Amino acid sequence: MTRIVLGLEYDGNAFHGWQRQKYLPSVQAAMEDALARIAAHPVRLHCAGRTDAGVHARNQVAHFDTETRRPLNAWVRGLNALLPSFVAVRWAKAADACFHARYSAWRRRYRYLLLNRPERPGLWAGRAGWFHLPLELESMRMAAACLLGEHDFSAFRAAGCQAKSAVKLLTHVAVHREISLVDGDFFVFDFEASAFLQHMVRNLVGALVYVGKGAWSPEYLQDVLERRDRALSAPTFPPDGLYFQGALYDPFFAIPVPDWGFR
Amino acid sequence: MTRIVLGLEYDGNAFHGWQRQKYLPSVQAAMEDALARIAAHPVRLHCAGRTDAGVHARNQVAHFDTETRRPLNAWVRGLNALLPSFVAVRWAKAADACFHARYSAWRRRYRYLLLNRPERPGLWAGRAGWFHLPLELESMRMAAACLLGEHDFSAFRAAGCQAKSAVKLLTHVAVHREISLVDGDFFVFDFEASAFLQHMVRNLVGALVYVGKGAWSPEYLQDVLERRDRALSAPTFPPDGLYFQGALYDPFFAIPVPDWGFR
Repeated sequence: MTRIVLGLEYDGNAFHGWQRQKYLPSVQAAMEDALARIAAHPVRLHCAGRTDAGVHARNQVAHFDTETRRPLNAWVRGLNALLPSFVAVRWAKAADACFHARYSAWRRRYRYLLLNRPERPGLWAGRAGWFHLPLELESMRMAAACLLGEHDFSAFRAAGCQAKSAVKLLTHVAVHREISLVDGDFFVFDFEASAFLQHMVRNLVGALVYVGKGAWSPEYLQDVLERRDRALSAPTFPPDGLYFQGALYDPFFAIPVPDWGFR
Repeated sequence: MTRIVLGLEYDGNAFHGWQRQKYLPSVQAAMEDALARIAAHPVRLHCAGRTDAGVHARNQVAHFDTETRRPLNAWVRGLNALLPSFVAVRWAKAADACFHARYSAWRRRYRYLLLNRPERPGLWAGRAGWFHLPLELESMRMAAACLLGEHDFSAFRAAGCQAKSAVKLLTHVAVHREISLVDGDFFVFDFEASAFLQHMVRNLVGALVYVGKGAWSPEYLQDVLERRDRALSAPTFPPDGLYFQGALYDPFFAIPVPDWGFR
């Protein structure tokens, strides 16, 4: 039995989220179907971050077990030949039997791309969030800094969230402006945490945008965080702009670490 | 009668090219249908660069005539409310009656995004070209410089091209490496010319990639150009990575000029 770890990227518009569903296409189903053809037996795939419908991944980490011996490259090129075009395998690696893509992860990183201009996106439709009024970078940065550290993030948790605890350790947060490769003004929001609650990034972006447009002070965001009441908070931003950037593991497992592009 | 000019952006994957077709969705049809609803009469829209199927636009310029008086903003926000999500109006402007989006254009600019890594794109499927072997930047730059100026570009012309003359003036060409917002290694190819032949950019990128992978010397590309024989040239790259970046007009018309992002 070999445990194989894969790095995946996908455009979330092509799938109804990671998790296998009965009638709708999912990343898990696309992957498991292709894996079963190469392994010649049914395969169960576990991932680091189960993305919601419409959420993209730049470096999703996932593992499976197989008794079939294949050169590692077969799991990359072979899968890429079988998979639908909006998902691709970036790398494959044999892993220790005690490695688990979800439970071994120390950190997870997400990025939110927000197009900030009066007109809605056309070229970036489905791949960026959008806010039409000017946003103030410095106040968003000040507010973001309040989120660092261990907190009960109940104020930014979806109603249906199944996490056992709302206490998470946020280890990195950054906001910057970026002129993209093919388009205009973006704000980029980067988050790293031990784990995330459901919709947590999308809710945090909603709150930071409230600060950036001047409706909330950075102190008010801290107040919302401390009150732990979702009802006080700002709207949830759509999945379009959300990218799962990857997961971090104990160096013992030697899982490839992508260039995060953090600032 | 007022002549209105629009700046448009679109994701080419959602359309079968600019030009209206009988049974397939096109940018022109989507735009003209939405325009007719706001103008309350049939509208004919003319663009600066009629993009092929799968080609994107960052700042397509297009004009139409109407007798209906609307505030300029109605042509932006009103159209964006009616249009499908993968096309958006960025700006609208009243123009002189002698302005023509296609015939008044002095220059047109295209960008080609090429993902350069062993694995095919997943996240950027449909929005970037792909080449799997390492490419040498400096030799591509040397070869690109040979293309500058006025040449007969028959060697880089599609068989079905309807242009009256293959002689075009190439006024800018640049190749650079870029680490994108959400992904890894891209090569970016920028071109500016008086006009382009059909598939010219996609054929030029194919030729520059032959140079970058070491199959052709920069001098050989110049030789291909001078022989004017398409049969000697390299493969046409797919439309996925091609972006119409905009058009340049006489300053008299005061058409908005986007930030090209040229280097």
